[in-house]
Amino acid sequence: MIKDSIIKLESFNYSPYQILQKKRDGIALSKAEIEWFVSSYTSGDIPDYQMAALLMAIYLRGMNVEETKFLTDAMLYSGKVLDFADQKVIDKHSTGGVGDKTSFILGPIAAACGVKVPMIAGRGLGHTGGTVDKIECIENFNTSLSLEELKHNLEKINIVLIGQTKDIAPADKKIYALRDVTATVESIPLITASIMSKKLAEGTSGIVMDIKTGSGAFMKNLKEAKALAKSIRNTALRFNKNIITMLTDMNQPLGNAVGNSLEIIECIETLKGKGPKDLTDLSLSLAGGMIYLAGLAKNLDAGIKMAKESIKNKNALEKFRELIIAQGGSGDYIDDYTKFPVAKNVMEIKAQKSGYINQIDGIGIGLSLVDLGGGRKKSTDKIDYSVGIIVHKKIGDKVIKGHPIASLYYHSHQQVMAQEICYKYQQEYVVIKSKIPQHISPLIIETKIDWSK
Amino acid sequence: MIKDSIIKLESFNYSPYQILQKKRDGIALSKAEIEWFVSSYTSGDIPDYQMAALLMAIYLRGMNVEETKFLTDAMLYSGKVLDFADQKVIDKHSTGGVGDKTSFILGPIAAACGVKVPMIAGRGLGHTGGTVDKIECIENFNTSLSLEELKHNLEKINIVLIGQTKDIAPADKKIYALRDVTATVESIPLITASIMSKKLAEGTSGIVMDIKTGSGAFMKNLKEAKALAKSIRNTALRFNKNIITMLTDMNQPLGNAVGNSLEIIECIETLKGKGPKDLTDLSLSLAGGMIYLAGLAKNLDAGIKMAKESIKNKNALEKFRELIIAQGGSGDYIDDYTKFPVAKNVMEIKAQKSGYINQIDGIGIGLSLVDLGGGRKKSTDKIDYSVGIIVHKKIGDKVIKGHPIASLYYHSHQQVMAQEICYKYQQEYVVIKSKIPQHISPLIIETKIDWSK
Repeated sequence: MIKDSIIKLESFNYSPYQILQKKRDGIALSKAEIEWFVSSYTSGDIPDYQMAALLMAIYLRGMNVEETKFLTDAMLYSGKVLDFADQKVIDKHSTGGVGDKTSFILGPIAAACGVKVPMIAGRGLGHTGGTVDKIECIENFNTSLSLEELKHNLEKINIVLIGQTKDIAPADKKIYALRDVTATVESIPLITASIMSKKLAEGTSGIVMDIKTGSGAFMKNLKEAKALAKSIRNTALRFNKNIITMLTDMNQPLGNAVGNSLEIIECIETLKGKGPKDLTDLSLSLAGGMIYLAGLAKNLDAGIKMAKESIKNKNALEKFRELIIAQGGSGDYIDDYTKFPVAKNVMEIKAQKSGYINQIDGIGIGLSLVDLGGGRKKSTDKIDYSVGIIVHKKIGDKVIKGHPIASLYYHSHQQVMAQEICYKYQQEYVVIKSKIPQHISPLIIETKIDWSK
Repeated sequence: MIKDSIIKLESFNYSPYQILQKKRDGIALSKAEIEWFVSSYTSGDIPDYQMAALLMAIYLRGMNVEETKFLTDAMLYSGKVLDFADQKVIDKHSTGGVGDKTSFILGPIAAACGVKVPMIAGRGLGHTGGTVDKIECIENFNTSLSLEELKHNLEKINIVLIGQTKDIAPADKKIYALRDVTATVESIPLITASIMSKKLAEGTSGIVMDIKTGSGAFMKNLKEAKALAKSIRNTALRFNKNIITMLTDMNQPLGNAVGNSLEIIECIETLKGKGPKDLTDLSLSLAGGMIYLAGLAKNLDAGIKMAKESIKNKNALEKFRELIIAQGGSGDYIDDYTKFPVAKNVMEIKAQKSGYINQIDGIGIGLSLVDLGGGRKKSTDKIDYSVGIIVHKKIGDKVIKGHPIASLYYHSHQQVMAQEICYKYQQEYVVIKSKIPQHISPLIIETKIDWSK
């Protein structure tokens, strides 16, 4: 199953300078040039400063569909590539946002419906949390399985959730760290290659891609988000993968909970049929897409119907319990939320005036979570699973002066910080106006489905 | 005289990321942002990869006149800045080319006419030779004078020639090395800041700038050369320096000699009134410009006339002898060329057919000199002063099949290499056609003079 596909390159006579010059001048790079540059950078033969110059040149000059495919390919084959050769193996990826926790809902749903879901997820940095960090609020949940263990669990219970391993797309890891400090993150070919090199390495037959757009997303506007969706579809098709892209709203946190334990509890509630409407609807749609791509439903709507059924009959909830147990945790978390670490102090954040919520600053809320210790400022920071924020009122909701709009979970020693966050939430994070906002973005803005054959 | 003007910056709250983002998005940087980035890079607080990304962003987004001035300023004040406060202190700079040796001619001419000429020159790398390397073919010539010794010699004999010191514009040294490996050399604001930060640090009241254009120059086409000339004039004026820019032809080597000893001998011949016409004419024009800027002639033509006179009356020749003696060499080199190290073997390169020289590849000739050991492949290489090439026939000259068009000076053990160079010279470096070339570029294409007040 695991092909050791690290490319052994012949000693080409390329010069980093000439490749930099080409891209700088807007000339498309060849497959061999891109492969050579990426593999030489990954091996340390090309230094950071030359890759930094190339990344900026790519940011400003772009890459065509072919080049993006070559870059993805070079990053993909910098590490191990799985190949399940099974149409039922499907994964989902999200470009990320505050409160985005759909993996813990759609994963169990899809797995309960017969999809095989090999989730290889990241950790959080800055204002967005990481899937792996969140699940680790469950004691003893082991996200460091080997690729062989991954395969075993996938066959046994249809679902597995592990962290990034150094075996998968190591080039991406190194390049991403450099993009992060050279202002070259928001580039469509670079984002495409970064996402797709990791997802393709998982050996799925299809991918459901949740592309967030709005104030709390990487892609602030719809035009950019659509361009990224198109680039991802193009790249998926060139690798013979079936692909669904959904452009979804990230103008406010998804669901209500922001913070590791609080988010997992909200996911379990959602699997019990008692989750917030936006989180439930989006999870069902994404899961429905996975079921459809796996060939288990005749269309997307039929897939969504199966997803709903799996919540109603508790199969998805029990699948989540199975996942926790299979990876070393206790199944009791599903029934007993007191097992989760949750901070003891709760501060009610109250509306400063009556009216309608017009805006919520998800990034502000995400950064406040980081301040509380629930996220990372630097990659070596430890996560405090117990702190967080529950957003009670979302965009369009009516609020009454003095009534709670959010709750803050914090530790006794954080009293001053909690008051500061409360103040910022009231004054900056939330905009209350007398009228309901004229336009409220739909949750799912656009869905596109492409079959590779 | 020497102001220790290294900027002591307050601890600003700038982030390299935000500055990169701004320039990436085409927004002009502020004086404080540019100063902070350059000084942090020079001190090592900003790593190479962030400067590399900024250089590529500057390359692709450009810099306006203000930003270029700020960048020059930041690089200038990264080191010591001389200030002679004397209108007669004038220097010349050339953007470089194969066979470019005018400094050794115009320096003595201008000094003989009363101009004070503080030459701080570079070493060679790649296809162009360095002024400091060339003069060192004279035994014991010391180019490592202190800035105080520079001042003393300038007052005593009007002329001094030293190498780059680490005191002058250290930021430029570090940035230039990075540009050289990140394909960001040919950027007009970056070239302007690099040249001007060094030249302004010399504390001259005016500068004559020889901007080469053509196949053997950095600026291959006239449009780019004109843009660089304009950028340099703009920057000079903002620093209250008088400036003359001359766009001059570099479609073939300047003069006939290429190689360290051979070039210095050619310069002495030129000072004796027996030099090649192109080298003589250009040196006289540049020296005339220096004399004019120093206020010693009423216009450029009058300056050129004084320059010619200094050759006729041997004053310039004797000034060169004074320079050599003042810096530790023997004055006998002027009269006795056998003192120069010159390789014993001479190979005549003969025309393969009759006709007219239509093209000469100066870069090819320069690289052949490097192969022979007369130039550097890497900065630690030692120079062999004795090897070289004399070009007998230039563009437009009539040649007869079997007659010599060039002579190669080499060592006995280099027989095979010499034959290879001879072959390449005949087959590649020189294009002989039956007709005289339709257009021969004038030696001096454009002269612009700007007084700062």
